[in-house]
Amino acid sequence: MKLEELVKQIEGTFFIPDNYKGKKVQEITIEKVSNLDQAGPNDISFFVNPKLLGQFKKTKAGAVLVSKANKESDCLQIVHPDPKVSMAKTYNLFYELKHSFKGLSELAFIHQHSKVHPKATIYPYCYISEGAEVGEDSVLYPNTFLGERAKVGKNTVLFPNVVVMNDCEIGSNCLIHPGTAIGGDGFGFTPTGTHNIKVPQTGKVVIEDDVEIGSLCTIDRAAFDKTYIGRESKLDSQVHVAHNVHIGELALIAGQTGIAGSAKLGKNFMCSGQVAVGPGMEIGDGVIVGPKAGVIKPIKEKGEYMGMPTVKKMEWLKEARGISKLPELMKRITALEKQIEELKNLSS
Amino acid sequence: MKLEELVKQIEGTFFIPDNYKGKKVQEITIEKVSNLDQAGPNDISFFVNPKLLGQFKKTKAGAVLVSKANKESDCLQIVHPDPKVSMAKTYNLFYELKHSFKGLSELAFIHQHSKVHPKATIYPYCYISEGAEVGEDSVLYPNTFLGERAKVGKNTVLFPNVVVMNDCEIGSNCLIHPGTAIGGDGFGFTPTGTHNIKVPQTGKVVIEDDVEIGSLCTIDRAAFDKTYIGRESKLDSQVHVAHNVHIGELALIAGQTGIAGSAKLGKNFMCSGQVAVGPGMEIGDGVIVGPKAGVIKPIKEKGEYMGMPTVKKMEWLKEARGISKLPELMKRITALEKQIEELKNLSS
Amino acid sequence: MKLEELVKQIEGTFFIPDNYKGKKVQEITIEKVSNLDQAGPNDISFFVNPKLLGQFKKTKAGAVLVSKANKESDCLQIVHPDPKVSMAKTYNLFYELKHSFKGLSELAFIHQHSKVHPKATIYPYCYISEGAEVGEDSVLYPNTFLGERAKVGKNTVLFPNVVVMNDCEIGSNCLIHPGTAIGGDGFGFTPTGTHNIKVPQTGKVVIEDDVEIGSLCTIDRAAFDKTYIGRESKLDSQVHVAHNVHIGELALIAGQTGIAGSAKLGKNFMCSGQVAVGPGMEIGDGVIVGPKAGVIKPIKEKGEYMGMPTVKKMEWLKEARGISKLPELMKRITALEKQIEELKNLSS
Repeated sequence: MKLEELVKQIEGTFFIPDNYKGKKVQEITIEKVSNLDQAGPNDISFFVNPKLLGQFKKTKAGAVLVSKANKESDCLQIVHPDPKVSMAKTYNLFYELKHSFKGLSELAFIHQHSKVHPKATIYPYCYISEGAEVGEDSVLYPNTFLGERAKVGKNTVLFPNVVVMNDCEIGSNCLIHPGTAIGGDGFGFTPTGTHNIKVPQTGKVVIEDDVEIGSLCTIDRAAFDKTYIGRESKLDSQVHVAHNVHIGELALIAGQTGIAGSAKLGKNFMCSGQVAVGPGMEIGDGVIVGPKAGVIKPIKEKGEYMGMPTVKKMEWLKEARGISKLPELMKRITALEKQIEELKNLSS
Repeated sequence: MKLEELVKQIEGTFFIPDNYKGKKVQEITIEKVSNLDQAGPNDISFFVNPKLLGQFKKTKAGAVLVSKANKESDCLQIVHPDPKVSMAKTYNLFYELKHSFKGLSELAFIHQHSKVHPKATIYPYCYISEGAEVGEDSVLYPNTFLGERAKVGKNTVLFPNVVVMNDCEIGSNCLIHPGTAIGGDGFGFTPTGTHNIKVPQTGKVVIEDDVEIGSLCTIDRAAFDKTYIGRESKLDSQVHVAHNVHIGELALIAGQTGIAGSAKLGKNFMCSGQVAVGPGMEIGDGVIVGPKAGVIKPIKEKGEYMGMPTVKKMEWLKEARGISKLPELMKRITALEKQIEELKNLSS
Repeated sequence: MKLEELVKQIEGTFFIPDNYKGKKVQEITIEKVSNLDQAGPNDISFFVNPKLLGQFKKTKAGAVLVSKANKESDCLQIVHPDPKVSMAKTYNLFYELKHSFKGLSELAFIHQHSKVHPKATIYPYCYISEGAEVGEDSVLYPNTFLGERAKVGKNTVLFPNVVVMNDCEIGSNCLIHPGTAIGGDGFGFTPTGTHNIKVPQTGKVVIEDDVEIGSLCTIDRAAFDKTYIGRESKLDSQVHVAHNVHIGELALIAGQTGIAGSAKLGKNFMCSGQVAVGPGMEIGDGVIVGPKAGVIKPIKEKGEYMGMPTVKKMEWLKEARGISKLPELMKRITALEKQIEELKNLSS
């Protein structure tokens, strides 16, 4: 890839030191991303960590991504205010997800009344039920299952052992990692004391475009209507999304988090691992929830939260400090009680 | 379905307003369940939420489920003291789980020395080992695996990718959701410092009738004897049941809960999500455990529990209030200490 | 097995009571392990629990494992200082993992450019990609998937539905339980507010020899370089290991634990269930973490830890006691404040 094209794609700008003046820097060919100390003239590298200044000064990289122009090195620099963003974009320019198998395998079961695009890829041992649909350029790895009328959009990849039950819908450009189960029944039972009566789960799951779901997640079908995951939301591995949950667009949900039934998460929700969101909780836009926290009260205000029940992060830090001092506080209270007794005796 | 039959099935009673007098209400045909505002003359609806009184007054439903007769509407009413129960029962009357595939697929591997009932359904790519048994009307979805001598009763459904390892037994009328693994080895190792010696897991898993297990659960085989799940217990998705656990009948266990080795849960156990029950814990009948709680002491008494370690719910609420006041309490203690000092100086 | 051989294998020593003098005890044949009260002359049993002294005195076992010679019984005894170790070793002598299928199934997809050892076993419906390798005596159960260039060593067993994605490596003598997903993408995204840019996960997973991984675990591939699990580490079910994690040798990790990205665990790490280790945390050798704990600060020192954030177990017990007394402490503080007021009024 020509450097000019790369700079355009990541929306960066050139910083051209004097020693590059007169050279056609736009024409430099970049072949891969490398670390500063390993990069050669056809590699692009990045300088983010100030500790690597020494490497930055001596690098032989064809170009280096920086957050602002830096005259301490005479290397060719590409400036982008957010180095994390420019790095992620650059990585993607040199990365392509490849699939070794092509076509519709004769070892797969593709129902005659399903609609599989001729340019889709179906690996062996997939099972595609009646009325299911698979869009152009989508890829289904071995042992995936599509239930009746299940829909998979364009350019979506289902890795091995993914299950999509009846009527569930997955958008385009999605990536679903191995073993994830979409559309198993939600957990709905009415206990009478002597029986647990099942409430039929007649809804479905709808997953919008550009969603990524990690390995071994469970996205349960709705009791009625739908369980919903908005555009460009990304789930880590072993995340559980219960029936009728609504996840807004652009969520980032870390591993082993569970979202209980009918919870409603706003846009740009972020959380660390092993978080729980309780049944029916409503969470506003831009909320960030810390590790192992339990949301059992609604959260309206944007900000960072921690604890069980969740409080603002600053509060939680104070509480945690308080807890660590509890053994000492107990002693101080006992000492106070003793002193008060003495003072009382004195004054009586 | 005739309304008379429906009323009988859900064990309700008619409340017939004056405008229905003389009409053969028993003969009304009901076709589906609908919301009050959408229901037509062949729909049954329900009035539970007092906020929907307006809709209740104007509904065109053929009949409405209520907890007690209500004269504010002149619609035909069916009275049942517990609306959740009557609703769940009614939903089930109009719901049927269908399977598009019938018969024993030639694309499945069915060992010649297994016993698969001729009226069972085996989808393609199932693997049924020697000595395994599948009862009448049971359905095995694609990519399920039955180990040697594994048993599945009558009218049980294993959704795609379910694994039942050697010698494990599943009763009748069970529903096992996608990807659940039954009978993987329990976690038994003896560390010597330089090695972790495996303790062979020679037991099995026994699951009684009418059990439902969510997607991607793990029910590990016993070290010896059995891991046991009692009649009509229902597990949500991603629940982990370790070796030699005994779950009594009628449990309701929410998502991502883990029950450690040899724990013994009484009847009618209920818990919220992400609960942990520690190794060997004994829990009596009728215990309810709240979200994210950790049972590391036995619980004998019926009631609601929360926290880690678990305490009675009322205690936990007090503790949680205490924790939220800790930063303030610390200040108050410091203030007290100061005042005491002053008083001491005064009195000396 | 001759008793002499057994004693040698478990590194025990004979204790021969007088009534056995002159008999060729080495020649006794042992066929299985039994409880004291059920054992016959060709069984080996163990006496660990002092409550079973009565059974120990009357047992008909061919030999009994004990931690030290005990003259209260006249049975033949085999002494080993650590009864858990000797029992585990003895169980293994009489246990053999068997696989009913042999050979390379014609119902499996084995790429012509893969390297599957002729003495490996490949069950039906496995998919082995181009460049993948399977060593001698290894067994792949139905519906397992090996991605391109994935490697499985010798004598390793992948139970049904295990997925090993491209380039990931599993050593020899490993046991991977059903449904575990190895090498799904790590969770790497850069949020810009309007997009979540994926960071390509170009690394792999490397699992050393003698590792056991429970059912439905997720071992995510590294962003770059590798996610690593050291020799003889053992993972329970539903454990999540994120990208670039390094787990040292001999770990024992209980169910539903999650290790976040780039965490580095020392040797002999042990933890209870539902533990979380935060991103990038470094943990020294010999650390033990209790149930539901959250490691969000590095742990250098060997020892037992609990809580969220983790503290030494003794500290946690004090804190927990403090929390349980918080409602009372609040009352005591209020009482103190009132008394101080009274004393102040008195002294003014």
